[in-house]
Amino acid sequence: MKTIADYIRTIPNFPHEGIMFRDVTTLFNDARGFRMAVDTLLHPFAGRPIDRVAGLEARGFILGGAVAHQLGVGFIPVRKAGKLPHDRISQDYTLEYGTATVELHTDSFEPGESVLIVDDLLATGGTAEAGIKLIERLGGKVAGCAFVVDLPDLGGRARLEAMGVEVHALCSYSGE
Amino acid sequence: MKTIADYIRTIPNFPHEGIMFRDVTTLFNDARGFRMAVDTLLHPFAGRPIDRVAGLEARGFILGGAVAHQLGVGFIPVRKAGKLPHDRISQDYTLEYGTATVELHTDSFEPGESVLIVDDLLATGGTAEAGIKLIERLGGKVAGCAFVVDLPDLGGRARLEAMGVEVHALCSYSGE
Repeated sequence: MKTIADYIRTIPNFPHEGIMFRDVTTLFNDARGFRMAVDTLLHPFAGRPIDRVAGLEARGFILGGAVAHQLGVGFIPVRKAGKLPHDRISQDYTLEYGTATVELHTDSFEPGESVLIVDDLLATGGTAEAGIKLIERLGGKVAGCAFVVDLPDLGGRARLEAMGVEVHALCSYSGE
Repeated sequence: MKTIADYIRTIPNFPHEGIMFRDVTTLFNDARGFRMAVDTLLHPFAGRPIDRVAGLEARGFILGGAVAHQLGVGFIPVRKAGKLPHDRISQDYTLEYGTATVELHTDSFEPGESVLIVDDLLATGGTAEAGIKLIERLGGKVAGCAFVVDLPDLGGRARLEAMGVEVHALCSYSGE
């Protein structure tokens, strides 16, 4: 029986020389792989209260939509700047070169609700950290962050855990 | 009981003066609304063979992920140029000013498979038409195109139906 990692394709030197890109499209386009990813992602949160699922643009929308559907809760998009049409808050974060901004609608959820953050890959954790800050600024509680792939050498897991957030990933690649 | 349309928020003059923007985030972030959207979207396709669900970047990923999960099939992203890391085909389409390009991995599905295309909104139909062409170029059959919102005055429905593709939408706005 194939594991989650068996469905993930590694593309050397994408998008830049020296990067081993972990391609989850081969996991998501397989019926059994996609179902297993959703089920396994939710396993650590079984029986815990989750009011909404937030997905990070863009690949986090795919898994986030499926996870929200599986839980029977609403889905919240954390979007790149300029995409959300209504009242919103913004959070900047640092990239390797420069900065980027993500946004959240102010009426995405009710204060006090518990929000699960979902994305495909955890690298430096900059986007996820910005997502956590957005949710906390609106009075939400972050139930946890769930990823398909963790690259712990890039420090994202340590960074999010230092914020007091629980982090789970379906598989991990290090030492490369 | 609220209908799908009751969950959709209209934002005047976004992103440009004179545009009535149909905001589906209020549908997707509501547990009952999101579930109803997925169920209603699939209703016309009940009992029909669907092998994969293709979502158009980026909002089509949210609903597409949930629809694929509901059907128990794999999800295929139709992405903007430069995002897919492996062997891919490209299709240009015309925008109001200029052109854009979408891409599909060549190993997204097997030739002869039936693919349902999902997006949040049908306007001129340019992106959906490009998605249909990509799937057909790889030997796939388009089971249909399913949207949350149809703006028939912009001609998208007529354009896709002229390609012989079945089009369904959960609600429609015209005459504005």
